[in-house]
Amino acid sequence: MRPMVEKHEIDGLEQLRLRLAAFAEERDWQQFHSPKNLAMALIAETAELVEHFQWITQEQSRNPNPEKRSAISLELADILIYLVRIADQLDVDLIAAATDKIEINENRYPTAKVRGKALRAEEYK
Amino acid sequence: MRPMVEKHEIDGLEQLRLRLAAFAEERDWQQFHSPKNLAMALIAETAELVEHFQWITQEQSRNPNPEKRSAISLELADILIYLVRIADQLDVDLIAAATDKIEINENRYPTAKVRGKALRAEEYK
Amino acid sequence: MRPMVEKHEIDGLEQLRLRLAAFAEERDWQQFHSPKNLAMALIAETAELVEHFQWITQEQSRNPNPEKRSAISLELADILIYLVRIADQLDVDLIAAATDKIEINENRYPTAKVRGKALRAEEYK
Amino acid sequence: MRPMVEKHEIDGLEQLRLRLAAFAEERDWQQFHSPKNLAMALIAETAELVEHFQWITQEQSRNPNPEKRSAISLELADILIYLVRIADQLDVDLIAAATDKIEINENRYPTAKVRGKALRAEEYK
Repeated sequence: MRPMVEKHEIDGLEQLRLRLAAFAEERDWQQFHSPKNLAMALIAETAELVEHFQWITQEQSRNPNPEKRSAISLELADILIYLVRIADQLDVDLIAAATDKIEINENRYPTAKVRGKALRAEEYK
Repeated sequence: MRPMVEKHEIDGLEQLRLRLAAFAEERDWQQFHSPKNLAMALIAETAELVEHFQWITQEQSRNPNPEKRSAISLELADILIYLVRIADQLDVDLIAAATDKIEINENRYPTAKVRGKALRAEEYK
Repeated sequence: MRPMVEKHEIDGLEQLRLRLAAFAEERDWQQFHSPKNLAMALIAETAELVEHFQWITQEQSRNPNPEKRSAISLELADILIYLVRIADQLDVDLIAAATDKIEINENRYPTAKVRGKALRAEEYK
Repeated sequence: MRPMVEKHEIDGLEQLRLRLAAFAEERDWQQFHSPKNLAMALIAETAELVEHFQWITQEQSRNPNPEKRSAISLELADILIYLVRIADQLDVDLIAAATDKIEINENRYPTAKVRGKALRAEEYK
């Protein structure tokens, strides 16, 4: 049984979750929305974001023109939509999970050790 | 100038955004967090989610054991973290963008036309 | 029935295809190697390549140190391995397909129009 | 200086490498083809392959109709094209790297231990 909705969930994400569940149900798409399939859709959408940045410099990516910024916004929306959908299928509370992960990252990347360096966790001595 | 925070942002996502900005600033990582780089990190994390599902069936993906479900939660967290971070760099309001996109999808996939079918938009006659 | 091997296939790729097919058969992994699953494995490997480059500049990516270059070589190998494997499952001749695609690209990106510009096909006027 | 072409490279891949290098040079695209950028383009193409399979079953993915199979062939071609291009930029011999990786995999996944099981390396006891 799904746990009762906790306080920090009553927010934009929770409304989004409900709306997306209704969207899928109205179309009888629940049958296609296995976590396996949704993960594929999620990465396909993420790649559309990557595509916007593939031939430009980092500096250019910080300053998209309005038309491009608007297109990028919709790609970010697609990513959020599938992310919320897959979390819903697996009964994962995204904000709680992110909070857990930030604590892990705070231990893994202590400020004194990593300041100004961008390595992967296993590359720090 | 960043627009004033709108009402629907005062929620879990907004708190998350602020916390992640502080996390990066404390480590002087802002310099690495161009949208181009963050998009790469985002897709790398998304692929770690995909990896959990690559050899199992759709049915199995709907019922992960507790250990696997917990690992998957942290992957979803990583995706949300980078998604919020990139949206912050580009001043995109994720909930507003998702709301816009859902409206587009409602027009693109009218219930009567797509019910029970999972095609890509261009594949519907 | 698989078409007869054509001349341009008798090369490194063809030997690789045969060796990978034997590798999977010896392990009874053919059952897991649906194109759907292999596409997931392929993108997971590709993301490991992306991860090597996510926090570095374009210039740095052109000059990896020997240790990093060696790690990258093995990621490229993983990508080729899954690519050959999926092509084999679908009876696609990779070299012939690439030749076809280069012809398409030559028409889509005529030198006079695209010289020195890196846009996506739909962005050229 | 680029090492002399070795024997096993004189095949379809080597011809492809030369043709793609000329294609980029004629368009003055060498400047955009850093390994960082090419890795992004590569994963974007790989995601287009994933997209073909996201809503269908494994069984369906084994039997695409001719139209779909042809579209998939061109996606595989795009992946090979960027893979060859990035290997060229980093002076990596793809066939040699794949041969090395297969040897690693033979040790990592001994037949007796993994037969009929599809786990990730770290999941085998």
